[in-house]
Amino acid sequence: MIHVVKVGGNIIDNKEALQQFLNDFASIQGSKILIHGGGKIATEVAGKLGITQQMVDGRRITDALTLDVITMVYAGLINKNLIASLQSLGCESIGVCGADGNLISAQKRVVKDIDYGLVGDHLIVNTSFLSTLLQSGKTIVVAPITHDTKGQLLNTNADTIAESIASALAEKEAVQLIYCFDKKGVLEDVNDENSVIKSLNDSQVAILKSEGKIHTGMIPKIDNALKTIQKGVQTVIIGHASEIKNLVNGIGGTKIMKD
Amino acid sequence: MIHVVKVGGNIIDNKEALQQFLNDFASIQGSKILIHGGGKIATEVAGKLGITQQMVDGRRITDALTLDVITMVYAGLINKNLIASLQSLGCESIGVCGADGNLISAQKRVVKDIDYGLVGDHLIVNTSFLSTLLQSGKTIVVAPITHDTKGQLLNTNADTIAESIASALAEKEAVQLIYCFDKKGVLEDVNDENSVIKSLNDSQVAILKSEGKIHTGMIPKIDNALKTIQKGVQTVIIGHASEIKNLVNGIGGTKIMKD
Repeated sequence: MIHVVKVGGNIIDNKEALQQFLNDFASIQGSKILIHGGGKIATEVAGKLGITQQMVDGRRITDALTLDVITMVYAGLINKNLIASLQSLGCESIGVCGADGNLISAQKRVVKDIDYGLVGDHLIVNTSFLSTLLQSGKTIVVAPITHDTKGQLLNTNADTIAESIASALAEKEAVQLIYCFDKKGVLEDVNDENSVIKSLNDSQVAILKSEGKIHTGMIPKIDNALKTIQKGVQTVIIGHASEIKNLVNGIGGTKIMKD
Repeated sequence: MIHVVKVGGNIIDNKEALQQFLNDFASIQGSKILIHGGGKIATEVAGKLGITQQMVDGRRITDALTLDVITMVYAGLINKNLIASLQSLGCESIGVCGADGNLISAQKRVVKDIDYGLVGDHLIVNTSFLSTLLQSGKTIVVAPITHDTKGQLLNTNADTIAESIASALAEKEAVQLIYCFDKKGVLEDVNDENSVIKSLNDSQVAILKSEGKIHTGMIPKIDNALKTIQKGVQTVIIGHASEIKNLVNGIGGTKIMKD
């Protein structure tokens, strides 16, 4: 079983939570891949460098200077410090972005109403190189950046990268995908941490959506999870980063399953 | 034959020279490793971020904030853009720093008269992982950062990294080390680009040094080269980045050889 774990930016931003998460993650046995988000550091660095964040309809536009900052912070500062920490915990790991070994190629997002800039869509994952690294006993840590194979790096959603890697590997191997964030799972009542929905399938999601019971922010995550299950990933679990050791063993969080 | 190539910061800083170098480098057949310097970008970014460069006796001190900038710029911005470019040229490549796969561990420089801060010395190279990557057909691109295996990244001289990698690999394989910079080789007359010394051995270097004929800036490079030859590297060549295609074939530059 390959564990594909996504950890969100809010954990990356919290030094203590991150250290605890890395201790736990390092102790997970077997093949594992960690995809990390960016957190607030990129925004802070961009601010200090005087790079104005262009926003359209509340969404960030990745112009060339913003991409430079993202490349520095995600693939450099965050990724390499994660690697140094994991190595110190005895977890042999290698940090990559999608350009490395052509691991994840993508297409620049097509401009419709909004030009999102240098953002990657339609990901293609090079499973053969991923497998080579995993077979050599390495844990792979992926920064959320892809490339267009023509020399251009592309800012890419970390959830999408996690889903693409898990789905691609699932064609040949047993894969479990775990989204770690700062809630215990999908909550029935967003104000009640203990209202975690234990499991969800396609039809249950449809009902909860129609009843307006799924928190808007969770909908893309859940839709991604359902899509991933359809593509052959055995389980998708959404849960709290502090519970990663249990989550990999199927305890806690919200489990997304086939109908 | 494994080609270990170091390319200096002044080539990294020059967009056209860099593109030409990458075109040529990508076309080199066989196993190859590229170690890149940092150039001026890190200093510029540090300046914009308001991080004051501490200098002692004309040498830069790497404090924690400076290391963050170096990690962002070297392992992030420069390394990943080099990878994206090489991939676009059909050169399957992977970018790493010394922490990745524990490729290069080091010790924080011991404080004698000056505390250089977070700087790595006494490098140990993990040749088994390097060989795994080379055998999978990948070109390896190394950012000049190591780690202490206890979670701390360390700023490390790129020439030293190149020498350590070449020497370590030479224990088992035929290795050639090429230092690329913006001169055609070691010059007899620093003002005459055409006064390249074709070859140098230990005793010739001793004579030229005693006559004051070797430009001061070249001495560490040449001393490193001689040390590397003693450790079993077949040839060390010092030459112009624009001539890399000839240099790998033993044409041009200054060849450092055994007595």
